[in-house]
Amino acid sequence: MGITSDRAIERHYKCDRNGKPDLVIEGGTIVTVKDDMPVIKNGRVEISGRSISRILSHEERMACPTDCSDVIVADGTIVMPGLVNCHTHSAMTLFRGMADDLPLKKWLFEKIFPAEATFLSPETAYLGSLLACIEMLASGTTCFMDGYFFEDSLAHAALETGIRVIAGQGVIDFPAPGIPDPSANILVAREFAEKWSGFSDLIKPAIFCHSPVTCSGKTLSYACETCRVLGIPLFIHLSETRLEVEEVIRKSGKRPAHYLDSLGILDENLVAVHNVYLDESEIDLLASKGVRTVHAPESNMKLASGMAPISKMISRGLRPGLGTDGCASNNNLDMFGEMDTAAKAAKIQAGDPTVMSSKTLLKMVTSWGSAVGGLNGQIGTIEVGKEADVIIVDAKRPHMRPLYDPISSLVYCAGGSDVRDVIVAGKILMKDRKFLAIEPSDIIKEIKRLGGLIEKSLLQAQVAGI
Amino acid sequence: MGITSDRAIERHYKCDRNGKPDLVIEGGTIVTVKDDMPVIKNGRVEISGRSISRILSHEERMACPTDCSDVIVADGTIVMPGLVNCHTHSAMTLFRGMADDLPLKKWLFEKIFPAEATFLSPETAYLGSLLACIEMLASGTTCFMDGYFFEDSLAHAALETGIRVIAGQGVIDFPAPGIPDPSANILVAREFAEKWSGFSDLIKPAIFCHSPVTCSGKTLSYACETCRVLGIPLFIHLSETRLEVEEVIRKSGKRPAHYLDSLGILDENLVAVHNVYLDESEIDLLASKGVRTVHAPESNMKLASGMAPISKMISRGLRPGLGTDGCASNNNLDMFGEMDTAAKAAKIQAGDPTVMSSKTLLKMVTSWGSAVGGLNGQIGTIEVGKEADVIIVDAKRPHMRPLYDPISSLVYCAGGSDVRDVIVAGKILMKDRKFLAIEPSDIIKEIKRLGGLIEKSLLQAQVAGI
Repeated sequence: MGITSDRAIERHYKCDRNGKPDLVIEGGTIVTVKDDMPVIKNGRVEISGRSISRILSHEERMACPTDCSDVIVADGTIVMPGLVNCHTHSAMTLFRGMADDLPLKKWLFEKIFPAEATFLSPETAYLGSLLACIEMLASGTTCFMDGYFFEDSLAHAALETGIRVIAGQGVIDFPAPGIPDPSANILVAREFAEKWSGFSDLIKPAIFCHSPVTCSGKTLSYACETCRVLGIPLFIHLSETRLEVEEVIRKSGKRPAHYLDSLGILDENLVAVHNVYLDESEIDLLASKGVRTVHAPESNMKLASGMAPISKMISRGLRPGLGTDGCASNNNLDMFGEMDTAAKAAKIQAGDPTVMSSKTLLKMVTSWGSAVGGLNGQIGTIEVGKEADVIIVDAKRPHMRPLYDPISSLVYCAGGSDVRDVIVAGKILMKDRKFLAIEPSDIIKEIKRLGGLIEKSLLQAQVAGI
Repeated sequence: MGITSDRAIERHYKCDRNGKPDLVIEGGTIVTVKDDMPVIKNGRVEISGRSISRILSHEERMACPTDCSDVIVADGTIVMPGLVNCHTHSAMTLFRGMADDLPLKKWLFEKIFPAEATFLSPETAYLGSLLACIEMLASGTTCFMDGYFFEDSLAHAALETGIRVIAGQGVIDFPAPGIPDPSANILVAREFAEKWSGFSDLIKPAIFCHSPVTCSGKTLSYACETCRVLGIPLFIHLSETRLEVEEVIRKSGKRPAHYLDSLGILDENLVAVHNVYLDESEIDLLASKGVRTVHAPESNMKLASGMAPISKMISRGLRPGLGTDGCASNNNLDMFGEMDTAAKAAKIQAGDPTVMSSKTLLKMVTSWGSAVGGLNGQIGTIEVGKEADVIIVDAKRPHMRPLYDPISSLVYCAGGSDVRDVIVAGKILMKDRKFLAIEPSDIIKEIKRLGGLIEKSLLQAQVAGI
């Protein structure tokens, strides 16, 4: 745009200053992910404190010179809300790639459970969670939902890195890492939730019940009641495998969603993860009860568990978030890759290339994902008043060009490594792919040491024929 | 390893020098992809001229100090054969993300064909191909197989960037870009093949017949005969969609593979791409005739075409390569992403997490892929005597740690952006993610200009209701 037309615009637009912003993102294509997903080319996002205070179009920007010393130049990038990973088990980064291509039962009982029993401690869970947090931030995830044991360690790791989290202390009716006596499982979860409630604006506690198979009806009801009292969400793995569905039916005479309903725990406070084997009646039931749902296709595919009826769920009014699941079954936490796979898998599943469009996918990882975490008023869109969880994606790389439609490019071309800058609640955590407050190489060095110990133990087990 | 033990090793191993190498890759985990896929930790790869001249274990390396001025330090990396992308249409990068989530017919007839007719020229095909070549190199692909029109432009682009290619001039029985008179299609292909035969060690010509539906039996036979005479491979899209299969059956009374057999063109010189709707008899037929095959799952999924019976094909003795297909239907050329999706999609398709292991995938993109291109003696493994097409993958990033099994990490964790250095035929093309001889930003600037023209034209068509 030339100088003459800039001046004309300056006369036309009134530069309505509303205090000096603390941080400005100047230029770039702003993908707002608001209702009809408007895209603002060459705009500006102004951030004051933790929040987005103003969004300017190119014309408004020309009329209103930047009045801020902290400017991120974003030409040739896409500016968008930070991604929300609605399901993972962070500390399982420790077991990334430790056991692939195995039958589900062997994977779980001979590899994962023994590794957890041997190697999980508050210290190793902290380290694995730190690794997960830097991996997520480096690939554009600014908020995630976790469910695991030693969740206190996860909360500390999140605090250390500055990422936003909904941290679900794991509940299971067996002796588990950190909870040798399962009768104390809800008590441990409650203490965790009470400790972290109100501790940090970025950390919200939750309870994560493992599944309707591994938690009794009594445990589930008690967990639900505890969550209601504390005003925190309850998460659960629902119908992930065919075996699990069969077992619930055998024990209760009901399909899993109906069984949970009979316990009185199906409501807007429940987050159901996986939903692979929902039948029509269960989809309608979840939708009518306002249950929040999470789709985790890469893990479901890698374990050959099955494919959730995701297009159908959306057409019935559900608004699922997307999650990577843990690194033992994916094996990374890249939400860009997850979007791409989710879209392609749904198209082939439906035999219809029009389902699960790039717009739907982008909503799943931002606005819908935020709603799954109960954070839809706070984050998930680039909108004035929302907390400034913003990522800047480099769109100048060969695989991002030409760029006809930024939403398509984000879903079908981009990868986590294209994320250049990451801001959470107005604070820059990563700039030009460098973390500002933490040193990933220190964490990776520690991980290497611990990974070496795990590998040695695995080799010993192999030699011993275990 | 301490000094004392190094000395002990030095006494034990004899440093058998065989001339001074021109380039040395020092350290790193060498994934050889030889038969039983041995991995050499902390080894050394020596390159003399175009070829790999020596591979040393850690112990041998300690005994034999480097005697070369050109050393790539590769600690904390994975050193492996360059990837082979067995199917793409390079210049279609121009149409990346131009038309997504559409019904197949609308996508092809209303978007892709008109865009090709309007915007393809020798100049734009050259530019689009340049973009594809730098995208492929930057994501670790050192050899690819192409099929499109204006293939001369593609060959020039490959030559410019230093990548290895098998370039198939497109043949179709309709007026096509650069071939207004389809009766000249084989003649154009033959002239192309004759021009490029022996021109460069890195460029091998081929003929690419579009499909058994869009090429007559006469055209297919003529193309096959021409390829046999010239000693070059014949490529074809086979059974990509259900509609195509139905049409072949309607016209010939035979399923597509049997139809091609009846034309006498099924042999070791044929490369059949897609193979989505092969039935049992067709799989056996292709295997018995030694036909080479290519799997392109991401494109098949995004267009909802279907899923090739890939595990079954492999169990019957076929050794398929992997391909991304063109950027109009994928939408990137990242072979790491393609491996990951291929593994996961095959597992869910078979309902069995043990099929399509990471080892199988890695072979598909290296040794098997090279064989598809008839280059198995030349490239595809890290082996003495092979041409030095080598990539170095950064394994220190958070999503690559811990690293228990480098093959699993490459398939399930890595992305194209993790590739740090790229060597083709002994020449370093990319170092620390910087191209040495070409300037990607110049190409991307030109692409931006051309993309702008295409976008403007698309918008005009939209306004006009086209």
